[in-house]
Amino acid sequence: MLVFIPAETRAGERRVGLTPEGAQKLIKLGLTVSIQEGAGQASGYHDDEYKSAGATTVAGASALGTADVVASVRPLENDAISQLKSGAVTISFLSPTNDAQTVKALADKKVTSLSFDVLPRISRAQSMDALTSQALCAGYRTVLIAAERAPKFFPMLMTAAGTIPAAKVLVLGAGVAGLQAMATARRLGAIVSAYDVRASSADEVKSMGATFLDLGLDEVEGAGGYAREMTPERAKAQQDALKKFISESDVVITTAAVPGRKAPTLITSDMMSSMKPGAIIVDLAAESGGNVEGTIAGEDVVLNVPGGSVTLIGCKDLASQLAVHASKLYSQNVVSLLTLMTAEGVVTPDEEDEVVQGSAVVFNGEVRNAMAREALNLPALATGEGE
Amino acid sequence: MLVFIPAETRAGERRVGLTPEGAQKLIKLGLTVSIQEGAGQASGYHDDEYKSAGATTVAGASALGTADVVASVRPLENDAISQLKSGAVTISFLSPTNDAQTVKALADKKVTSLSFDVLPRISRAQSMDALTSQALCAGYRTVLIAAERAPKFFPMLMTAAGTIPAAKVLVLGAGVAGLQAMATARRLGAIVSAYDVRASSADEVKSMGATFLDLGLDEVEGAGGYAREMTPERAKAQQDALKKFISESDVVITTAAVPGRKAPTLITSDMMSSMKPGAIIVDLAAESGGNVEGTIAGEDVVLNVPGGSVTLIGCKDLASQLAVHASKLYSQNVVSLLTLMTAEGVVTPDEEDEVVQGSAVVFNGEVRNAMAREALNLPALATGEGE
Repeated sequence: MLVFIPAETRAGERRVGLTPEGAQKLIKLGLTVSIQEGAGQASGYHDDEYKSAGATTVAGASALGTADVVASVRPLENDAISQLKSGAVTISFLSPTNDAQTVKALADKKVTSLSFDVLPRISRAQSMDALTSQALCAGYRTVLIAAERAPKFFPMLMTAAGTIPAAKVLVLGAGVAGLQAMATARRLGAIVSAYDVRASSADEVKSMGATFLDLGLDEVEGAGGYAREMTPERAKAQQDALKKFISESDVVITTAAVPGRKAPTLITSDMMSSMKPGAIIVDLAAESGGNVEGTIAGEDVVLNVPGGSVTLIGCKDLASQLAVHASKLYSQNVVSLLTLMTAEGVVTPDEEDEVVQGSAVVFNGEVRNAMAREALNLPALATGEGE
Repeated sequence: MLVFIPAETRAGERRVGLTPEGAQKLIKLGLTVSIQEGAGQASGYHDDEYKSAGATTVAGASALGTADVVASVRPLENDAISQLKSGAVTISFLSPTNDAQTVKALADKKVTSLSFDVLPRISRAQSMDALTSQALCAGYRTVLIAAERAPKFFPMLMTAAGTIPAAKVLVLGAGVAGLQAMATARRLGAIVSAYDVRASSADEVKSMGATFLDLGLDEVEGAGGYAREMTPERAKAQQDALKKFISESDVVITTAAVPGRKAPTLITSDMMSSMKPGAIIVDLAAESGGNVEGTIAGEDVVLNVPGGSVTLIGCKDLASQLAVHASKLYSQNVVSLLTLMTAEGVVTPDEEDEVVQGSAVVFNGEVRNAMAREALNLPALATGEGE
C-alpha cells in the first residue's frame, strides 16, 4: 500500500508530515512510501535522505490519486482532496469545527480522515499525540521569543557593577505548552509563576520549578483533562484576581485553549495597561482568537503605558518555526498511528479501536465526529462516536 | 558641580549613561545631576524617576555648555562637543583609533575625556569596567538570537514521540561575552564547546560547563589578558583545525576581538559552506569587521548549502537591545568612576591615578593615549602614558 506525503501548501507552514527516519519505519511495516519532491526542504529533510531511506520522490502531487494513505501536517486543501481515491485514509490535523467544509469535502470523496485534533488522550495513544508534540515545540518557542525581545536579562546575575535581578515570568495555562514554557523560562533563570483553571495542574506546575498561583477561585475542568469554557462571572473574577500578578510580571505567556472553541480572554486591555514599561506578553493562543484582548496572530500590538510601552506578540505558526524537530516528532506520531492500523503491509482502520474511533472525523465517507456533524448541520449519530 | 546626561544621538542606541538609581548615588557624593528630557525613555527610565531621585530634567542639550561632567554611552558628536566648556570631563566609550577625529575635537575644546574602551583591567577598576558589563549583555543576547532563530530545540527532550538530541553550540572566543554565551547556551541545555587562542582560558571555559577544544596550536596572548593579532600562517592553521568542529555544530557564536584592531577572520565562507542546513552563525564582532567572512553588521547573510541554507547573523547594537539592564550596569560603571574622582563634591581627575591615567584619552586638552596620537599623526609622548 502506498503512503504519500504531499508538500504542505498553507502559507507559513514549514513542517513535513514524515521525515526520512519515519519513511524507513513505514517501509519496515511493509508499506511503500512516496514523497513529493522538496516536501521536506523547509524543515531540513532532503529528497536524497528520503531516497536513502527507501522512499521514492515524485514531482508534484500526482500520487494523491493512487495513494492509500496521505499524511500531511495541515488538512489537505480542496484541490488535493478532489484527487483522492475512494477508500483512502488521510492523516493530519483537522479541526471538526474550523475545518468543517474540509471535513465535508473529505466525506464526499468517501475517504477515512483521522485527525490529531481529536485523538483520544489515553495512555496507549501517547506516542501518536501530535497535539502534545507540537505544543511542546510551541511552548518552548514562546519563551525564546519573549527572552529575545525583552530589554532585561532572564537570569539573576551578580557582577562587579551590581546585581541584576531575575526576570519574573507568569505563564497562564498549564497544558503541555504552558509547562514547557515554564521549564524553558526556568532554564533561563527566570522566577516563574503559573495559573491554570484546573487546580489539578498545581503539582505539575511545581514540578517545573514554578509557583502555582492560588487565586481562591473555583476550578473549571472539563472532559479528558482539558479546560472547559467558563461563565462570564468566573472569567471576570479570574481577571480581577490575576491583574496584580500580571502588573508585577516582566513577561506573561498565555497558553489557554479550549478544544474546538475560541480561546478564552484572560487578559483585557485594561490589565495589559497596568503592566510595567518594557513588559512583554506572548499570546500562544493568538491563532484561535487569543487569550489577550486585541491580539493579532503574526503581529505585534504595542500599548503605550506611563513611561513606555508594553508589547503583545500574537504568535503564529509557532511549532512550524521549529521545523526540524517539530517535523521529527510529528513524523513519529504519524508512524505510531499507522503502526496501530497496519498488519502485514495493509492499513486497515478498525472502527472498534478506541483510538481510531476517536480520531476518525470521517470514516468511510461518513462524518463521525459529533462537533463536525453539528458544524455541518448533520443530525447527530445515534451512538455518538467520535466525540 | 554639574553632571549632565545628554540623550544618546546615534541611530540604534537605546541605552542611557545614568539611571535614576545612579543619579541618586552621584547626588549623595555632593554632585548636581541634570538629565536631558526623555534621555532614559528608550531604556525604560523615565523623567519622573530621575526627578524623584533628586535630578533635574532639562529640555534639549543646553546644559552641555555649563556641565562640569558629561556622561554618555557613545562618544559625543561634534555638535555636542562644540558646546562643552573648557576643563569639562567627558565619560563614555571612545575608541582611540575609530573615533580619532572625535578625540581631536575633544582635545581642541581643552576637556578631559575618559574612555571605557581603554580603562585599565586592574582589580580596583572592576566596578568601572563598562567593556565587561556591556560584553556580558552582548554575550547573553547572542545565544537568545541563535535559539530564537534555530529550527531545533537547544535542550535534549525525552518525549512520547522520541528523544530530541541537545543542540551543539560552538563558541569562539572566551572573553566576557564568550563566557556569558557559553553559560546561556548551557542554561538552555545545549552541548557547548569553545575555543580561544589564549590557552589560559581553558579553565574558565570548563567552569561554564563547556568543553575547551584543544587544536594543538600555539597560543596567542597579548597584553592585559586580551588576545593579540595572529600571523596569517597561525590564522590559517586555526581555520583548518576548526573546520571539522564548525561543520558539526548547530550554532556557532563568534566573539573574538582584538582591542583597537579589526576583528580576526575565524570562519571563511568555505568553512561556513561545510555546515549543516539550518545551522546558524551569530557574529558578535560584526561591528568591528566580523569574525566571519562576508559578515554585515545588522543583516543576515544566507548561504546555500547542499539541501538547505546556513544563516550568518551579523550583530549590531547587541548590548543596546538589552537596554534596561545594559544601562543599569553602565550607570554603575559611571558612578564608580566618578566616585573615584570625586572628593567633597568636586570632581578632580588625578593624572597620577593609574585608572585615570589609563582611561584618559584626552587630559586637559592633550591627547594622551598613544594609539590615538598615532591615529592623529601626533608625535609620541615621552612618557607613553595612556596606553
